[in-house]
Amino acid sequence: MIADAETLRCLFSPRSVAIVGARPKSSWANAAYRNLKTMGFAGKFFAVNRSGEEFQGHQSYKSCSAISDEVDVALLVIPAGAVSEALDDLAAARIGVAIIIASGFAELGPEGRVAETEVREKAARLGIRLLGPNCLGVANFVDSTGLWAGGVSPQKQGGLAIVSQSGAVAISIHRYAIQQGVAHSHMVSTGNELDIDVSDAILFLLQDERVRAIALFIETVRDTKKFEAACSAARTAGKPIVVLKVGRSEHTAKVAQAHTGAMVGDDRVFDAFCKQNGLIRVNSLDELVHTADAFLKAGPIAGRRIAAISISGGLSEVCADLAALAGLDLCDFSAETVERLREFLPDYAGVNCPLDLTGLATTQPDMGGRAVAAIAMDAGVDLVVYVFEVPESDLDASPFSEEMLQSVAEAARAAGKPVVVMSHQVKIVSNYAARIIERLELPYISGGLQFGMAALASIAAWRMNSRAIEDDGDRITQSEIARTTASKLTTEYRAQQFLKEFGVSVVPTYLAGSEKAAEEAASLLGDKVVLKISSPQIAHKTEVGGVRIGIEPDHAAAEFSQMIERVCLARPDAAIDGVLVAPMRSGGLELIVGVVRDPQWGLVLAVGFGGVFVEVIKDVSMRLLPVGSGQIRQMLNELSGARLLNGFRGNPPTDIEALVGEIQRICAAALSLDGLDTLEINPLRVSGSQIEALDALVVSTGE
Amino acid sequence: MIADAETLRCLFSPRSVAIVGARPKSSWANAAYRNLKTMGFAGKFFAVNRSGEEFQGHQSYKSCSAISDEVDVALLVIPAGAVSEALDDLAAARIGVAIIIASGFAELGPEGRVAETEVREKAARLGIRLLGPNCLGVANFVDSTGLWAGGVSPQKQGGLAIVSQSGAVAISIHRYAIQQGVAHSHMVSTGNELDIDVSDAILFLLQDERVRAIALFIETVRDTKKFEAACSAARTAGKPIVVLKVGRSEHTAKVAQAHTGAMVGDDRVFDAFCKQNGLIRVNSLDELVHTADAFLKAGPIAGRRIAAISISGGLSEVCADLAALAGLDLCDFSAETVERLREFLPDYAGVNCPLDLTGLATTQPDMGGRAVAAIAMDAGVDLVVYVFEVPESDLDASPFSEEMLQSVAEAARAAGKPVVVMSHQVKIVSNYAARIIERLELPYISGGLQFGMAALASIAAWRMNSRAIEDDGDRITQSEIARTTASKLTTEYRAQQFLKEFGVSVVPTYLAGSEKAAEEAASLLGDKVVLKISSPQIAHKTEVGGVRIGIEPDHAAAEFSQMIERVCLARPDAAIDGVLVAPMRSGGLELIVGVVRDPQWGLVLAVGFGGVFVEVIKDVSMRLLPVGSGQIRQMLNELSGARLLNGFRGNPPTDIEALVGEIQRICAAALSLDGLDTLEINPLRVSGSQIEALDALVVSTGE
Repeated sequence: MIADAETLRCLFSPRSVAIVGARPKSSWANAAYRNLKTMGFAGKFFAVNRSGEEFQGHQSYKSCSAISDEVDVALLVIPAGAVSEALDDLAAARIGVAIIIASGFAELGPEGRVAETEVREKAARLGIRLLGPNCLGVANFVDSTGLWAGGVSPQKQGGLAIVSQSGAVAISIHRYAIQQGVAHSHMVSTGNELDIDVSDAILFLLQDERVRAIALFIETVRDTKKFEAACSAARTAGKPIVVLKVGRSEHTAKVAQAHTGAMVGDDRVFDAFCKQNGLIRVNSLDELVHTADAFLKAGPIAGRRIAAISISGGLSEVCADLAALAGLDLCDFSAETVERLREFLPDYAGVNCPLDLTGLATTQPDMGGRAVAAIAMDAGVDLVVYVFEVPESDLDASPFSEEMLQSVAEAARAAGKPVVVMSHQVKIVSNYAARIIERLELPYISGGLQFGMAALASIAAWRMNSRAIEDDGDRITQSEIARTTASKLTTEYRAQQFLKEFGVSVVPTYLAGSEKAAEEAASLLGDKVVLKISSPQIAHKTEVGGVRIGIEPDHAAAEFSQMIERVCLARPDAAIDGVLVAPMRSGGLELIVGVVRDPQWGLVLAVGFGGVFVEVIKDVSMRLLPVGSGQIRQMLNELSGARLLNGFRGNPPTDIEALVGEIQRICAAALSLDGLDTLEINPLRVSGSQIEALDALVVSTGE
Repeated sequence: MIADAETLRCLFSPRSVAIVGARPKSSWANAAYRNLKTMGFAGKFFAVNRSGEEFQGHQSYKSCSAISDEVDVALLVIPAGAVSEALDDLAAARIGVAIIIASGFAELGPEGRVAETEVREKAARLGIRLLGPNCLGVANFVDSTGLWAGGVSPQKQGGLAIVSQSGAVAISIHRYAIQQGVAHSHMVSTGNELDIDVSDAILFLLQDERVRAIALFIETVRDTKKFEAACSAARTAGKPIVVLKVGRSEHTAKVAQAHTGAMVGDDRVFDAFCKQNGLIRVNSLDELVHTADAFLKAGPIAGRRIAAISISGGLSEVCADLAALAGLDLCDFSAETVERLREFLPDYAGVNCPLDLTGLATTQPDMGGRAVAAIAMDAGVDLVVYVFEVPESDLDASPFSEEMLQSVAEAARAAGKPVVVMSHQVKIVSNYAARIIERLELPYISGGLQFGMAALASIAAWRMNSRAIEDDGDRITQSEIARTTASKLTTEYRAQQFLKEFGVSVVPTYLAGSEKAAEEAASLLGDKVVLKISSPQIAHKTEVGGVRIGIEPDHAAAEFSQMIERVCLARPDAAIDGVLVAPMRSGGLELIVGVVRDPQWGLVLAVGFGGVFVEVIKDVSMRLLPVGSGQIRQMLNELSGARLLNGFRGNPPTDIEALVGEIQRICAAALSLDGLDTLEINPLRVSGSQIEALDALVVSTGE
């Protein structure tokens, strides 16, 4: 259930707070109290503890209900076992939201789970919303409030909101952001998410205009639909969510009957989710901060064409390599730009991108600003990066540093497109540096060329991707389609007939129940045929001698009998419907198209090329259903064999629109199946605009 | 020419120095003088300038020859045009080595090149060795000496030597190393390398026992053989060279007649060089410092099996993902290890790797050391990482931090295998932190989990790789082989005959000069054959109708005539030797094996799988010749289709030894060819232990 606005206001921006269990010896309570002071909290504070001991100079209340004032939020710094009772007191005091710090719930196993359920149900009954347990609470730097029971360091206020399931990780992000001069607005840790979760936090924070980007750390997504809604709201707000999700190294491949099933793992599905929901996924805590920061400093970036400037040839080259590695395109300057640059560059300087201003810039520091201005006018440039470090102390500063930075800052403001200054390596932003940055209003990325270039590339891709998602309107969703039960489609033949109902092109296939029928079918098809056994009990036909290829029509009858005999011997248990007779196909591209159910995320579409691509390189691209044509086109582009679609070894170029349409129809078919585990077409044969499913397999969940 | 030891001693560790052009207004001269003071230089200093002006309180000499004392090295802070004349003065003063700061030589084009040659030749004549031009000189922190004309910041002395062609990049590395607490020994910038180059510097520095690792920045390698010698010396010394070479983004693919030629570019060849010479290649300045630092802190690492410990579940998971991403194997604890850990871990803690000590460790900080000790005893662990940050100030420190770090440091010293403490993200090492690290002798990696895990993986791989290189003794080098001229091997047939002399298995092939001969050859072969035109002028046979496949023996005569007719029509200019008749082969794996000349590095072996692998994925692995069997085995393993060699779709598993031997013979053949541009076998057909070159192409350099 999405938390209501007033609850979240009380949680994120409380005007009056209570700490329950506020005893002088409680390190959590002391930390939370100290943080209120650090942040400059100006609201009302109430200490609650049963003993009535004084806390930090405050008279304590023995219960919340003893407080006569209204209290927005209570922080429960009490053992897990005492939480349930405390909720009654909160209800009596009409406190609508509580933060539970204690661990000792679900993470302890069955016993903890029972306690957790009890607390959840009681809170719901009493109308109290919960943050946690096993969390550290909320710090709101922009409103100088919040209850946070961990470490908080003083910092400037800025546009990054930190949302994390883990409290320790939130603190780590917070500290790193401070070291790197990335000012932030809020920090929230959601812990075990008994009630309020990261999606609630995101939905609330997005509405705050002071929040410009979200750094998210998650271990698991508990409510995928709510999470999707939060991502959608972020796109609408034009605010990126950068996410670090752990679990990349886990391989939860399930033992599956189909190729695609074996390749779907939690982590790859989450990757797919990120792609189709506009999340920027990163691998480390450093990347998390620097990627969000790149947006704070550069704002939305229209494309990948980057111009870079430095005052050293060596650094220019490092810059070029890292930009290319990140997937940015170093621009070529237009003739006009070259002319503008020639006006003030020394004759011996090469006028290329990245631009090396040469050592002359150290004696003529305003060359920095002039170069930015000249280059920003180039219509072929989406983004300008000036490679230079803000000194951390007098010792670190060159005589020309500030003058150069000032000229760059001024040119950046006038540029009309993103201009950032970027450090060489990760460079700390000391108080000394922060004063320069603030005075000059300098858009400074302190993450260095490696993190910085990767971050800018992600931000540019994010904007393009967000637009593509919004344009991808032709998704067919489950509700629009008539239902069938997957467990009925026990044979290839039935699966094929079902797919045909959805307009999927299936190779002409006859189910022959006799020698004569097999012969007739083969004659009708007119050329060499394939014979395949049809039995609900036999999924792997080849293993039981149930497949024969390249059969001449006049041998079909004999092959029919031999096959029945072989299969009956190998699988006396299996009921046999007959033998499928289909034409031999050769040439063309072979794709595998599968729809597989992920236990957490639901139906996943996987598309790959057959042969070595799927079997040796294990290359497939994935998206969650429903999926529109735009995303399917992207999936095809992501495949390492994508260029095969342009035509290869005598194959004609693929009719991409026809292929995308075919995959959409397969998805529609899958979405109409109740109890679907896997639907797989292997292969889907493609030759120009001729597309045909040569096989079909449906596996039900058995429910 | 490798510089002699005494020259390099004078350059790197001078006891007496002169600055030529030491005028009060020269910023280079002032910087170099200031650096001598900063580093605590105790030797003799002489200022030289024509005007005789006082410099920094020193009486100036009008020339070097006016100095009565011996001078080890002179720093020339004079314009490019004045260098030649100054050399005469140096010679008169018997100064054996000079550092030239000035730019304005080769980088200015033809005129500068002339000046450069003049200076080079004159110095050689006078017996003066040169560093630069366009460099900043040498700073020697461990001996408190050196002439460095850029910025130097004070720092502790330590085991990293910084070697860089670019002076600005050297300073950037130096500053970053200081920020991150990576103490270093020397810093040298070699500039345009008119004489002394990075290889000289490396060879000298390796002999200094205080130097433990080298961070190298290069734009180009001017003398590849000398560089190879430096790499070999580093392996022998057991000291890693970590290299950042720019130019990754350049694609110098040459227009070539063969597949492999088009895929060889400078950068990929340098990658191959790094692999077979034990260099650790990185992508950024940050990685450069952190990778070298990982060796300083961990020392040699025996393998990839890592155990990690943290005090937060969230951080443990980040740690696991980044270790896996880096290619490290998170170990499984042995039953004994689990038992040892159970003794002091709370019951609710899971005993898995990475180990989460839980919040309890904040109240029992010695759990850190106990965990390290318990885990280090596990024979399945090569390396222990303790995830924790050294605080940068009192504000940043937790009450338990130092006690925990102390217990970990003690356990690390007793462990008998590498144990490091690693920060979460890049974390600065402030003076406050440095004092803790020094007092506790803490092996602390400040680069965070992303850089740190990647660095440890590189260090572990470096040791394994260095050993493999030393074991790879069966290289056939050029000198051992009889010579042939490449330009003579103008046709496939001649190339095949040549390869056969080297024991390469070539498909039986007849050169038929008449219909009758073609028919006879086909009958001898006994089954369907392939016909191919043979002409020195025709490289692309298919394009002129010069290839026919699947021909029945009794059609061979007719096909012969038709082919001759077609080809004569299409290429009336071409001399025709006849038609090759060879058996049709089917099945098996197809590899491409090519040897291509790189203009800088010499002959390069490229191996890849045919079909989509080489044409669509562009996947080949490369090594410079000569190459031994160990490296060839590694090349095959690196291919994305490597698992094809285990058997695929009815193909038997490949006889790897036979394949490696075949590739070695192809290399031997290539090495015997004078004027070779490209030798390509496409395909080399492999089926189990049956290996056969189905084609052969030799392209000469035309010299």
